[in-house]
Amino acid sequence: MRILHDMYIRNEDTICAPATVPGTGAISVIRVSGQDALEIADKVIRCRRGTITSAKGYTLKFATVHDASGEVIDEVIVSVFRAPHSYTGENSIELSCHASSYIVSAIMNQLHEAGARAAEPGEFTQRAYLNGKMDLAQAEAVADVIASQNAAAHRIAFKQMKGGFSAELKGMRSELLELVSLMELELDFSEEEVEFADRSRLDSLLEQIIAHVSRLIDSFRLGNAIKSGVPVAIAGATNTGKSTLLNALLGEDRAIVSDIHGTTRDTIEETLNIDGVLFRFIDTAGLRETSELVEQIGIERTFKKISEASIVLGMVDLTRDFETTCETVRSILDKVDFEAQKLVILLNKTDISDVNKNVSTLNYIVSELENKGISNSSAEVVKIIPISAKTGSGIDDLRAVLAASQRDLLADSDTTLVTNQRHVQALTDARTSLLRVREGLAAGLPTDLAAQDIREAIYHLGSIVGEISTDEVLGNIFRNFCIGK
Amino acid sequence: MRILHDMYIRNEDTICAPATVPGTGAISVIRVSGQDALEIADKVIRCRRGTITSAKGYTLKFATVHDASGEVIDEVIVSVFRAPHSYTGENSIELSCHASSYIVSAIMNQLHEAGARAAEPGEFTQRAYLNGKMDLAQAEAVADVIASQNAAAHRIAFKQMKGGFSAELKGMRSELLELVSLMELELDFSEEEVEFADRSRLDSLLEQIIAHVSRLIDSFRLGNAIKSGVPVAIAGATNTGKSTLLNALLGEDRAIVSDIHGTTRDTIEETLNIDGVLFRFIDTAGLRETSELVEQIGIERTFKKISEASIVLGMVDLTRDFETTCETVRSILDKVDFEAQKLVILLNKTDISDVNKNVSTLNYIVSELENKGISNSSAEVVKIIPISAKTGSGIDDLRAVLAASQRDLLADSDTTLVTNQRHVQALTDARTSLLRVREGLAAGLPTDLAAQDIREAIYHLGSIVGEISTDEVLGNIFRNFCIGK
Repeated sequence: MRILHDMYIRNEDTICAPATVPGTGAISVIRVSGQDALEIADKVIRCRRGTITSAKGYTLKFATVHDASGEVIDEVIVSVFRAPHSYTGENSIELSCHASSYIVSAIMNQLHEAGARAAEPGEFTQRAYLNGKMDLAQAEAVADVIASQNAAAHRIAFKQMKGGFSAELKGMRSELLELVSLMELELDFSEEEVEFADRSRLDSLLEQIIAHVSRLIDSFRLGNAIKSGVPVAIAGATNTGKSTLLNALLGEDRAIVSDIHGTTRDTIEETLNIDGVLFRFIDTAGLRETSELVEQIGIERTFKKISEASIVLGMVDLTRDFETTCETVRSILDKVDFEAQKLVILLNKTDISDVNKNVSTLNYIVSELENKGISNSSAEVVKIIPISAKTGSGIDDLRAVLAASQRDLLADSDTTLVTNQRHVQALTDARTSLLRVREGLAAGLPTDLAAQDIREAIYHLGSIVGEISTDEVLGNIFRNFCIGK
Repeated sequence: MRILHDMYIRNEDTICAPATVPGTGAISVIRVSGQDALEIADKVIRCRRGTITSAKGYTLKFATVHDASGEVIDEVIVSVFRAPHSYTGENSIELSCHASSYIVSAIMNQLHEAGARAAEPGEFTQRAYLNGKMDLAQAEAVADVIASQNAAAHRIAFKQMKGGFSAELKGMRSELLELVSLMELELDFSEEEVEFADRSRLDSLLEQIIAHVSRLIDSFRLGNAIKSGVPVAIAGATNTGKSTLLNALLGEDRAIVSDIHGTTRDTIEETLNIDGVLFRFIDTAGLRETSELVEQIGIERTFKKISEASIVLGMVDLTRDFETTCETVRSILDKVDFEAQKLVILLNKTDISDVNKNVSTLNYIVSELENKGISNSSAEVVKIIPISAKTGSGIDDLRAVLAASQRDLLADSDTTLVTNQRHVQALTDARTSLLRVREGLAAGLPTDLAAQDIREAIYHLGSIVGEISTDEVLGNIFRNFCIGK
């Protein structure tokens, strides 16, 4: 059961906001929702025939919007939605006008005058949640659907928006309730000092649920990679051709690149679609120099970025002297976790480097890898690619290696992937409770304690779909929405 | 009667385009129009109930869009419009989806697969024109309505879009036809060597129409000032504080400033709304230095910019030596056309200049003005304002002077203002023909020659509303529209 929110009280309001991206274009849409939406519309709009309040739901009206002096601001097409058959579940209209910022703000002014207040970010979706049109996980997925940049991310977000993830959580909740009832059955018989007949069923059900929760938690690495891009750290000394490499990778697809400025000045991220997979390149330039020049905190930040990456691109500048090259190689190999990460060593500047020296560099790398117990047969983990970022030679090989390393992201799987940090946290909390149940049962603790832990797990799972939520949680979720959604 | 266009043949196509500004937001709208629009919609959309082809006009349908593999791309609300009751006059739908560039392009792909081609800029409006939903002047006004940045510009454009200007042209056309019939009457009686009884009526009608056309041509200066901003040239030597002045004027309204980079590197324009009037500031910096350093063509360009301005702001730097100041003053006064332009002399840097020298500068300016025959009583034409662009002192005075000088722009007049260069050209051509009529009649030339000139005038006026148009004219007009309009 949901707890009462401030929003329930404010839900009496009628809200309005532009729902389309601002700017000069063909049409803009303004949304109005709330119990007075239709009456407010009739105050600012004159229909060619009839009124908005008398219009049926799911119909369009041609109308004019007037300012206080009666002058026409614009001709509009009004979409009429009647509660509960609307996005928010309330009476709503969508007003399609000419896409001029002057007109949009003039109409907004009229709507304010007539009693509709400006909506806060995500407030329409929040109302849809509060009015039971969708649960919280679905509401969060709306933002993900909008933000999706590729087919895989879109598929996950859309499935979550349509309630796929919610249904799975509901299933787990029933299983947990079954678990509680099994325990209470045992409890009923406890005075007779007879242990519950089917203890093994209880254990296996618990194991099954823990495994399910764990799988969901583990899916976050993949889900997040699809949603935000596979993190690729570019490691190596400065001036080894990192930006030239990025440009070479981007090629003519420059348009689909976006700059994400990190919170710290020393990490700049760029995303790039390669064969349908989104990669997020993280510049960790100056790895080697940094260790000598910059304060410890900066180095640790760089190392942290590298440790969070799924793939490390180690840049080696073949034109440097052999000693420097070996140092760079050692420093890169030291940073990679070969259990969890893939390493691609790029021998750059093949166009202007000495072929003989290249061979000795290659040999040195292979021997260093062997020293670390990584043999040639570990081609799945380490690749070495000679490239010239400048001429583009070898870049196709790199693209192919990157794309091939993430084939699983493209698999059209029906398993749920968790993409939301809040959900991972709730799932992790639920698992902690469930592990306590297992421990307690094994130690022979009273089952009523275990039942309490299971209720906690149910609570955590319920918080994902918003069965229990607080204004703070809702505020955190919806403030990241855009206005008008 | 319209001539046949290539477009008529291509009108068989069904076209589609995003109609909202691209980007991440709440909703995006995709427009589809053409004889197969409803059938194509049914190929890519599955309605919850019924079909698009069976839907009534002016209704909404909730539906899902699917990709080739049957996977859902998005849930959409479809607005159904049936010919001729649509923007284009054709069968049309507007498809409201989540505002994600991934979804929009995925849906566009499906529409292309189903047989709708991507619309060209302005093609929806062009079809509205070709299908008789609006004339050419109205179609052009659609773009102006979208681009309007203030109430006055919006009012003019909206009135034109609703056919106000077209109706006025239609009235003139009837008057010209009456003129022709009066002449033909005279022609009928010509063999009897009886001059037409009511020659004075013919003359007065002709004068009346010439006056009307001239008034419309003259209105362009005001109309264009409202639409594009009142041109204000800032003249003066470099480093006299021009950019500081602009910043001071902008104050906290920086958000409404836009940079318009001119076609030449040496003119940068910024627009600013002051008390509801749009001003367009034109940087003509380096006036004095330019005359010595840069080639003649550059100087002439600067002079031309100054000559096109309605207001000249002459910047004088009070901290320069007296001789330099006098030179600047003379050079500014030389450039101003006191018949057509207003001059505001800004004595800048009052915060750090010598008060005594300021007085002598002021005296010098007054005497120079008197030399040019401009006395103190010409306060309507020349203002002198001491300012400190740096501290903001005097800036409010300047804003007030600028706003007051353009009070007529705010007058809520019902007279038509021409805002379109093409229309001015057509009106000028029409006037030329009419002046030839007057001349011919005065010289006693045969009235059948005059009748021919009147038909030419009718032709030119008709070209404004597109009664006669060519693909070239249409191409020029619609290529400046945005896609989706």
